[in-house]
Amino acid sequence: MASQTSPCVFPAERLEAFITEALTTLGLPDQDAAICAARITEADLRGVETHGIFRLPQYCQRIRAGGLNRRPKVRPVRENAVTALVDGDNGMGHVVMTYATHLAIKKAEEVGLAWVGTFNGNHAGAGAAYSTMPLLHDMISIYSTVANGNHMPPWGGVELLLGTNPISVAIPAGKEPPIALDIATTVSSAGKVKLAAQKGEFIPYGWMTDRRGQPLTDPKRASEGFLLPIGGYKGYGLNVVLGMLAGVLNGAAFGRNVVDFNKDFVTPNNSGHMILAMRVDNFQPVKAFKEEMDRVIREIRESERMEGVDRIWLPGEMEYYTQKERLENGIPIAAAVVEGLRKLAAELSLRDRLD
Amino acid sequence: MASQTSPCVFPAERLEAFITEALTTLGLPDQDAAICAARITEADLRGVETHGIFRLPQYCQRIRAGGLNRRPKVRPVRENAVTALVDGDNGMGHVVMTYATHLAIKKAEEVGLAWVGTFNGNHAGAGAAYSTMPLLHDMISIYSTVANGNHMPPWGGVELLLGTNPISVAIPAGKEPPIALDIATTVSSAGKVKLAAQKGEFIPYGWMTDRRGQPLTDPKRASEGFLLPIGGYKGYGLNVVLGMLAGVLNGAAFGRNVVDFNKDFVTPNNSGHMILAMRVDNFQPVKAFKEEMDRVIREIRESERMEGVDRIWLPGEMEYYTQKERLENGIPIAAAVVEGLRKLAAELSLRDRLD
Repeated sequence: MASQTSPCVFPAERLEAFITEALTTLGLPDQDAAICAARITEADLRGVETHGIFRLPQYCQRIRAGGLNRRPKVRPVRENAVTALVDGDNGMGHVVMTYATHLAIKKAEEVGLAWVGTFNGNHAGAGAAYSTMPLLHDMISIYSTVANGNHMPPWGGVELLLGTNPISVAIPAGKEPPIALDIATTVSSAGKVKLAAQKGEFIPYGWMTDRRGQPLTDPKRASEGFLLPIGGYKGYGLNVVLGMLAGVLNGAAFGRNVVDFNKDFVTPNNSGHMILAMRVDNFQPVKAFKEEMDRVIREIRESERMEGVDRIWLPGEMEYYTQKERLENGIPIAAAVVEGLRKLAAELSLRDRLD
Repeated sequence: MASQTSPCVFPAERLEAFITEALTTLGLPDQDAAICAARITEADLRGVETHGIFRLPQYCQRIRAGGLNRRPKVRPVRENAVTALVDGDNGMGHVVMTYATHLAIKKAEEVGLAWVGTFNGNHAGAGAAYSTMPLLHDMISIYSTVANGNHMPPWGGVELLLGTNPISVAIPAGKEPPIALDIATTVSSAGKVKLAAQKGEFIPYGWMTDRRGQPLTDPKRASEGFLLPIGGYKGYGLNVVLGMLAGVLNGAAFGRNVVDFNKDFVTPNNSGHMILAMRVDNFQPVKAFKEEMDRVIREIRESERMEGVDRIWLPGEMEYYTQKERLENGIPIAAAVVEGLRKLAAELSLRDRLD
């Protein structure tokens, strides 16, 4: 049996099969379970553990509590050649957003450009899981969502009305890894603060303030304060407009009606997402565009570095190489996470107990 | 005659007429000059002085130096129902982007959604001048551009390859002022640093670092360092993808081939811009959407404030009220700027000397 403290390493296929089995056991259709498993495992492959299998017990808790529709009928309720509003029917966010992304790609294939919004969904994992899908079709993509819990007030306020509302942008390249930005609009995530508290560490100046605007660096006092937006009022503004585009425009939750999915496992989240897909060849021949992308990527990477810096990274490049490496050598999963998954496997009587 | 140190106040119409006269005197067609004057004056009306008439002498210097095409033939070189790539023919950026925005609105009226990119353009002033135009058609809009000068290295680097690449997002509301975010992806603009140096003031921690990554707070040493992105590596990533979408995708300048328009008045800028316009009624009935926008705007504004904070602002709200007030009471222009404009008026023998 593996040690309790060092991470265990699993092949991606095994984790994917584990997730699929857990979700089908809970009553999800095979195809939906497989979609969730693929998106979740991809996050772990890319090194984005906060959106990977780490979240499976929580997803399962919501399904078992009845807060999520196991067999949703995901479908567009408004649609034209270039846009669609998709009702997620309170299904797993990964299922809803995979549907929405395929629909955006299909429309963009036909017309050149598409924007698909969703409501009545749930947490869908890492944004880059969706924004990178159109890359295979030589498309640019933009994704955003209203985060499933509020950890930030408006600029100048103290009431938690805003989440970490992220934006992800993917752009094809040629021989270079594609660009895949995936950032929250807060300086830190709530998860990183929790992790620091668990480890007994302080958090850096600039991550949080207290209700009087004073820096808060003791993560154990997190409930007395809130996360800060990137760039102060600028990130606040960006956070708000993303929330409006992914939430309000879709009739999804935003502000006071956001459900904290870490605390409430029953109330439907009405989580909103948006994805844009656009063909590169609207603007440039694909080959020429990719060559030019390679050129500017190399120009940035090979530019003069600050003393002590080994390498300049492009957005998504680090995740690209992590994925390559983990596909070969397996995915390290923290001991505490493995314990949680083993407990889940026992509860659900899964074949694989991850021993 | 007005004092040399206190600002002079001019009605918007007078400034607009002044700009139009200056530009027609330099050989721009009446219609193009009027477009530039409207966009420039709007920036001053909204309180965005850094993109207002303050820039006119510089624009005129470029025109006189032959770095800009006075009578451009602005036209799409690739086009379909939902996108267009517009060649700005090295014309004034305001002319090119006004054309592009009208084209995006026209396509979005017909199809629901459009994305128009431009190359071979120039500085176009404030992003919100364009992102707010689709609002009148009940459309959402997103605008970005590659800034006309590099003041920031890649994250971990020291070579200035990136500008302040801004993003502007506008969203219609009902009785409330529309949302109009317009932010650079750097913490400060280069202009603000220059201003602090002129005033002999220090700049805040977090605006700049030197080439070793140490905080730089003396703006007189600005040339020894560079601007910082909002949220560190996050803002760097956002800056890069915006530059790729507004620049590389359009075959416009990005990275090393960006021309510093403050230093070089002759080399064509090949400035790139992008604008997206999308009808709200793809997703919600316009009236219902606007009512919901009003509701969430009020929820944010009326939420609990931090001690000592008088008001919570939404993106673009401050500019909206400034515009209202300045339309009524006139636009204050700094004495130094007025002096520059009077000098220009004398050089061009304009009728109005702004006395």
